[in-house]
Amino acid sequence: MPDPGTLTEVANDRPGPALNAAMAETSEAVSARLSELLPEVDAPEGRVAAAMRYSALAGGKRLRPFLVVRSAALFNVSPHAALTVAAALEMIHTYSLIHDDLPAMDDDDLRRGRPTCHRQFDEATAILAGDGLLTRAFEVLADPVSHADPSVRCELVRELAEAAGAHGMVGGQMVDLMVERGIGSPEIDVAGITRMHQMKTGRLILFAGIAGPIMGKASSRMRASLHAYARDLGLAFQIADDVLDETGSAQDLGKTPGKDAAAGKSTFVTLLGLEEARSRAKLLSDQAVAHLDVFGPEADLLRAVARFVVERDR
Amino acid sequence: MPDPGTLTEVANDRPGPALNAAMAETSEAVSARLSELLPEVDAPEGRVAAAMRYSALAGGKRLRPFLVVRSAALFNVSPHAALTVAAALEMIHTYSLIHDDLPAMDDDDLRRGRPTCHRQFDEATAILAGDGLLTRAFEVLADPVSHADPSVRCELVRELAEAAGAHGMVGGQMVDLMVERGIGSPEIDVAGITRMHQMKTGRLILFAGIAGPIMGKASSRMRASLHAYARDLGLAFQIADDVLDETGSAQDLGKTPGKDAAAGKSTFVTLLGLEEARSRAKLLSDQAVAHLDVFGPEADLLRAVARFVVERDR
Repeated sequence: MPDPGTLTEVANDRPGPALNAAMAETSEAVSARLSELLPEVDAPEGRVAAAMRYSALAGGKRLRPFLVVRSAALFNVSPHAALTVAAALEMIHTYSLIHDDLPAMDDDDLRRGRPTCHRQFDEATAILAGDGLLTRAFEVLADPVSHADPSVRCELVRELAEAAGAHGMVGGQMVDLMVERGIGSPEIDVAGITRMHQMKTGRLILFAGIAGPIMGKASSRMRASLHAYARDLGLAFQIADDVLDETGSAQDLGKTPGKDAAAGKSTFVTLLGLEEARSRAKLLSDQAVAHLDVFGPEADLLRAVARFVVERDR
Repeated sequence: MPDPGTLTEVANDRPGPALNAAMAETSEAVSARLSELLPEVDAPEGRVAAAMRYSALAGGKRLRPFLVVRSAALFNVSPHAALTVAAALEMIHTYSLIHDDLPAMDDDDLRRGRPTCHRQFDEATAILAGDGLLTRAFEVLADPVSHADPSVRCELVRELAEAAGAHGMVGGQMVDLMVERGIGSPEIDVAGITRMHQMKTGRLILFAGIAGPIMGKASSRMRASLHAYARDLGLAFQIADDVLDETGSAQDLGKTPGKDAAAGKSTFVTLLGLEEARSRAKLLSDQAVAHLDVFGPEADLLRAVARFVVERDR
């Protein structure tokens, strides 16, 4: 139970099945929207379009799209526009996975149980597919289909570019690689690993939280609430990932547990210990929920997903 | 001499020195703007920022920025805004060179006489530097610094994304690789190679031609003129490149001449023969100049650059 001294309104706990159903519904809707926005191309260059579709339509939890869609719903944003922005964000997430999996980066053969893009196609095609998805995401955001107001579209482009760029996701990936390969000063402490994850994965999750208030032209108070919610949720998600890597079963995870720690990689678990990591993830999840106090029951699914990220078993 | 039956107003030929001076001035100004927009970063992730700067500030002809700046000047666009858009376009061009040079793509060690990004840093850093430049370009275009009107900024983002994406530059690069590696049907004829180049290099040059009229909210007639100008200039540029590859000296080119043809790669020269390729490039250059008939002497530098691309020796 969260500490009642720091949290209010921890009630409205939705049962797991409601969250599962809502997440499955969004996942299906965003896949359909991605399929529309990334059509097959009957021309020689169709090979790169096919690789983009292969990776973008591979499924996954679709956590970021869910956050976009649910936070947009708080402000009566058109569901079609929200799904469009969610799809653009998922294109950026997908491109980052394709490039991260490349031989020169993490060199992974499997992603979500299927061959990675460069194993299914080839390395050059995978590089281009990532580039194509990154480019397409901004094209979609800048199009009137994502919002009627061009100043809102520009803000979405700017915020997402900042989140994905050299000071956000790309910068976090750079630091992660440097630590792993001992480039520069390879020592990393809890503050360093927190900063790295806030850049590498946190910034995109943050965008997912504020896309709704941007589209809905929400008050700065409501936008700040969702900003704080997504920030804490993003970090909770990452710490929970490290905990799962240590404790999960290979079957649940779809990969070998303990791989990061065994590779000598610093994680929240190696730096904090299992119990402290668990307790921090739980605290952050509780804090994320508390940031939603400004909203009523209409934010219950966002509350439920903040609990889900630390309670999931994969 | 161009055929007087198809061309009018081929006068106003500026001497080479005026064009050279103007191109050198733009090149310096765009490098300065790129340096401002891509600052050094004093943090662990500064490594990727350094790689982005290394490649973006390596110089080069800066043909695309020159087209942006000169076409924007026709419509009294603020020079600072034009340079900002020119710098964003050059970031996209630079990212494409970084990724094209990667071992999985063209595997080049030298670019503009210096080690390529992945040789100077490492492969992972080069992939991330390209991703970072691509992302930063859209962030800059969507920022008020590129234009006061958000609908203009959105149009710039959309047009550049379309030019750079899977139906433009990335698609052209895909086709080029497929032809080279015999993926799919490797046969390519003049129509096929023309289409490939129009995607791979032509679309970005096209954007360079229309960025000015977009920023200046020019009439559709003037925009169409610059569109046609840039389309013909882009193809003339590519054919001239193939001619130079066949006839240029190693010293002028900074690379081994005849390398493409020796590698069994189809070029305009192998498909058309040297004389026919030369004559097509000249015809396209003349056509490009003719499309500027709607403008007066204020477009003389654009006329001069259309002649320059087919007359240059490197």
